[in-house]
Amino acid sequence: MSKLIGKALVAQGGGPTAVINQSLAGVVLESRKFAEISKIYGAKFGVSGIVNGFFLDLTESTTHNLGQVAKTPGAALGSTRDKPDEAYCKKMFEVMQRHDIRYFYYIGGNDSAETCRIVNEEANKANYELRVIHIPKTIDNDLVGTDHCPGYGSAGKFVAQAFAGANLDNCSLLGVYIGVIMGRHAGFLTASSILAKKFPDDGPHLIYLPERVFDPGKFVTDVQSVYEKYGRCVIAVSEGISDKDGKLIALSLQKEMEKDAYGNVQLSGSTALGDLLADLIKAKTKIKRVRADTFGYLQRSFLGCVSEIDRNEAREVGEKAVQYSVWHNVDGSVAINRVGDYAVEYKLLPLEEVAGKTKTMPTEFIDGDNMVTEAFKNYARPLVGDMEVLDRLAAPEVKKSL
Amino acid sequence: MSKLIGKALVAQGGGPTAVINQSLAGVVLESRKFAEISKIYGAKFGVSGIVNGFFLDLTESTTHNLGQVAKTPGAALGSTRDKPDEAYCKKMFEVMQRHDIRYFYYIGGNDSAETCRIVNEEANKANYELRVIHIPKTIDNDLVGTDHCPGYGSAGKFVAQAFAGANLDNCSLLGVYIGVIMGRHAGFLTASSILAKKFPDDGPHLIYLPERVFDPGKFVTDVQSVYEKYGRCVIAVSEGISDKDGKLIALSLQKEMEKDAYGNVQLSGSTALGDLLADLIKAKTKIKRVRADTFGYLQRSFLGCVSEIDRNEAREVGEKAVQYSVWHNVDGSVAINRVGDYAVEYKLLPLEEVAGKTKTMPTEFIDGDNMVTEAFKNYARPLVGDMEVLDRLAAPEVKKSL
Repeated sequence: MSKLIGKALVAQGGGPTAVINQSLAGVVLESRKFAEISKIYGAKFGVSGIVNGFFLDLTESTTHNLGQVAKTPGAALGSTRDKPDEAYCKKMFEVMQRHDIRYFYYIGGNDSAETCRIVNEEANKANYELRVIHIPKTIDNDLVGTDHCPGYGSAGKFVAQAFAGANLDNCSLLGVYIGVIMGRHAGFLTASSILAKKFPDDGPHLIYLPERVFDPGKFVTDVQSVYEKYGRCVIAVSEGISDKDGKLIALSLQKEMEKDAYGNVQLSGSTALGDLLADLIKAKTKIKRVRADTFGYLQRSFLGCVSEIDRNEAREVGEKAVQYSVWHNVDGSVAINRVGDYAVEYKLLPLEEVAGKTKTMPTEFIDGDNMVTEAFKNYARPLVGDMEVLDRLAAPEVKKSL
Repeated sequence: MSKLIGKALVAQGGGPTAVINQSLAGVVLESRKFAEISKIYGAKFGVSGIVNGFFLDLTESTTHNLGQVAKTPGAALGSTRDKPDEAYCKKMFEVMQRHDIRYFYYIGGNDSAETCRIVNEEANKANYELRVIHIPKTIDNDLVGTDHCPGYGSAGKFVAQAFAGANLDNCSLLGVYIGVIMGRHAGFLTASSILAKKFPDDGPHLIYLPERVFDPGKFVTDVQSVYEKYGRCVIAVSEGISDKDGKLIALSLQKEMEKDAYGNVQLSGSTALGDLLADLIKAKTKIKRVRADTFGYLQRSFLGCVSEIDRNEAREVGEKAVQYSVWHNVDGSVAINRVGDYAVEYKLLPLEEVAGKTKTMPTEFIDGDNMVTEAFKNYARPLVGDMEVLDRLAAPEVKKSL
């Protein structure tokens, strides 16, 4: 087999994560070790930079700069929400051909894998030798074929530490707290809210995942029951929770509440899921202090909350992508295989096995309709890594005088 | 002067912070060094635990446990929103008398200082010797007489790192980002959004403080102008921004938008300030990608984001409280005096100088109606301390082929 010699191109797609730049640094630093790769270009703003030929020459970046960028959240090359169709991919391929790109590395989720698959097809059709490797990245942890996705561990650590803090706040000032977490179809990130729970009565006490039907009536009963037991209740909710017809609760609940007679409680008129659920609890129970937060962009972008394992694996999938393409001269999607507690190895999957597909939480990770299992905790704990210290006062109560 | 011998009582009031338990540990560990203090009790749930006589005997807590609790966000004793009037304070005083409490330490904001002042008055009236010390705590940094308040530095660090991340996310996927920050009257916490800004074109590009009148029309022009310059815009907004009549924008804007004809843009119907401002930009400009987050409870409770100086000072104000009361046999509110760059000393202010008063951002910290000054940055940087690393790719653009 003759060596494939030419330029390499790397791009980042979809929502950024805390460690997506580790994968970028992995690709760039590794590719510079190979004589087959004459230059390594970075496309600005993902696939849109490819069709426009907007490239940086990363062969002229320094090791220190790449090391600092690797530690920085967000997509250093810029990203895009463009979802290329065949015509778009054809154009991408033409630009690559013009620049003598022979290695294409695309860091992203299942849409990015799909783009890789189509570009690869175009190259085959044109009889143009091009190695295409998809490098996994997503906070949702929803790619098939891999044990987990780089980016999930750090986002999970943020959510776990946010809920640990929210639980302590809720212990300080009693009431109901609702935190709404990203993840339309897969509940992995919402489930990670449990990972810094220490004492048996710590929250989150209830976890609602998109994998289970959400029943507003049952929700009120659940909350009431926890509140009666502990005098407080901390709840993790996925933004993607849906009713029995698959309709998002964020859409269906407001209509239901508007037409129903909800006592004398004034609806805030909000369409935000957290506020709607808070209004529901205020309307249907006697609980007065009900608060809701939507974690928003902080969970994927916060500076300074990175899982060590996630950081290292994100770097490694970038390095492995280059190695597979050059040493083995193959296309595919890099995947992580868990081989110990905790140890991993890497493998390459065919692009079509990953492209456009979504993984959700397996049944063994879900306990009933409002909790996760010990199996989930064992799965996720090594990924988010060490958590900060927290403790309670251990001191006896003073006997009331008189 | 004869020594005052008896029990000590410590309580925590108002919203918790990341370091309020440092002050608690400071009080407990320091008070156990004095023979004058026979026992140190902790009131559960602030003043409400005092009127109910719900105390923990912290003399029976261990050094390790207190050390771990000190590192834990939230109020370990529990807090309360009760604002005691004279009758309430009288009842508190009676319970203290019954338990032979001779030293009372209350960790909280200006309401807590006011409670201290009234309890002190009651003791004087009854000719009962009681030392009362207020220990400052607030993320809002709004206490008078002190250079800054323990709790602010850590919350400021969270906000700064959240905005650094949000800015990087906004660089990845261009658009407008609005982050809404706590602080009804004082803008210190919102202003801290600037502290991790590195490059000249980094966000936040606009900062709206409660100290300045907010004009929705001017806001739209500001945003449009930044967006034209950078192709994106990151905005920090205080939840307390108000119009020229002092009415909260969160209340006035919705009404205005409902009666105005806003083209074909559908209002989300939300009452959340961030969503309202996002709707306004979408309605009045051609910018499509507009996102808003409300930071909510995370900014005061997140586990794992503590400023080192804040942590140490929070511990010290607790220790100083005990020292003032025993060595000097006086009442007052502990305050921090900045004496160098960066160095502090502690002093004790009369309770009435702090009680019920609010400090806002001084004029020299505010630049026009949408930015802070270098003087503010110099003031706040030592308080939030070191920030995580972040960097951009430094690599030349590739010349477009053809």
